[in-house]
Amino acid sequence: MPPPIEFHFDFSSPYGYLASTRIDALAARRGRAVAWRPFLLGAVFKVSGMAPLLDYPLKGDYARRDFARFARLLGVGFTLPTPFPFAAVAASRAFYWLAGRDEASAVALARALYHASYGEGRDISPAETVASIAASLGLDRAAVLAALNDPAVKEALRQAVERAVARGVFGSPTVIVDGEMFWGADRLDQVERWLETGGW
Amino acid sequence: MPPPIEFHFDFSSPYGYLASTRIDALAARRGRAVAWRPFLLGAVFKVSGMAPLLDYPLKGDYARRDFARFARLLGVGFTLPTPFPFAAVAASRAFYWLAGRDEASAVALARALYHASYGEGRDISPAETVASIAASLGLDRAAVLAALNDPAVKEALRQAVERAVARGVFGSPTVIVDGEMFWGADRLDQVERWLETGGW
Repeated sequence: MPPPIEFHFDFSSPYGYLASTRIDALAARRGRAVAWRPFLLGAVFKVSGMAPLLDYPLKGDYARRDFARFARLLGVGFTLPTPFPFAAVAASRAFYWLAGRDEASAVALARALYHASYGEGRDISPAETVASIAASLGLDRAAVLAALNDPAVKEALRQAVERAVARGVFGSPTVIVDGEMFWGADRLDQVERWLETGGW
Repeated sequence: MPPPIEFHFDFSSPYGYLASTRIDALAARRGRAVAWRPFLLGAVFKVSGMAPLLDYPLKGDYARRDFARFARLLGVGFTLPTPFPFAAVAASRAFYWLAGRDEASAVALARALYHASYGEGRDISPAETVASIAASLGLDRAAVLAALNDPAVKEALRQAVERAVARGVFGSPTVIVDGEMFWGADRLDQVERWLETGGW
């Protein structure tokens, strides 16, 4: 069994959301699993010197239009939540807490969080919202809320972000296939081709 | 005859070069002409707040690798010239000088300049190099050198850059199809689909 492809994303990244709607099916077509790896762009920006997308004049205007246009092309819903960008710390902690017990459930939670956020436009930054979404998947609401303040969970997220930076991840989404990195929802076709051909 | 699609690029942009190798054939498949429109990213950065790609840690490392990988995928040569990035003022002035007389010749010159730069890794920033490349296409070397210092030509470039910013162009390449903007060499597939379908 070949190793999983790495899917690095920030829950507050619209392009991460778009990629999340395709990544598992894409990998499955080539017999691969996907390791979902949320990180925090804010922490990466401190290393990369970049800023949130919509902070850039011109580029921000383009991005707002492009998010929805790209979503239509993929046939998925898109609503930019308010506020945007938002803090994805609670969502990311919940993911790593659950991943430590059951990776598949953590991925299901990630999908549900992304759907709530960019599919429905909900604000998923509050811990209570993350807990409610987790509860809708059958998880224990109180356990989720406790986990979000657990120092071990905070540390797990901190280390995950450090690992992403150490891998060279600077944007969301980033897919790594057998050591080869692809940045951007618009590179998934290249990811698929790389999987097909083993490189070019 | 539908209007040409606009191809905005900086001669010092590797992704502009990559797109330049595909744009005319892509447009021709849909019965469209291409209006080549060089601009200067440096001037746009003053508005957009962005910086040259390789100035960003992590992202710069990725880009260096990606330039060559993307070129291999397209089946075109790629050599990063030294210095990089470089000043594309002379190349851009030569383009607009020639475009004022003969648009097709200006496009031929643009292709030759891009090929010299990223195909062969030559430094095309000096006026003398631009004049030599123009001369290899049968243009008068002395006339090119004179044009590069002509205030009217300088003004033509300045106005072209202003128009690009006014159109919302913030990166290279940017393709505008019937008012719809697409940024990035990796969006040419979306450009082609937009041309096929008239939107989605």
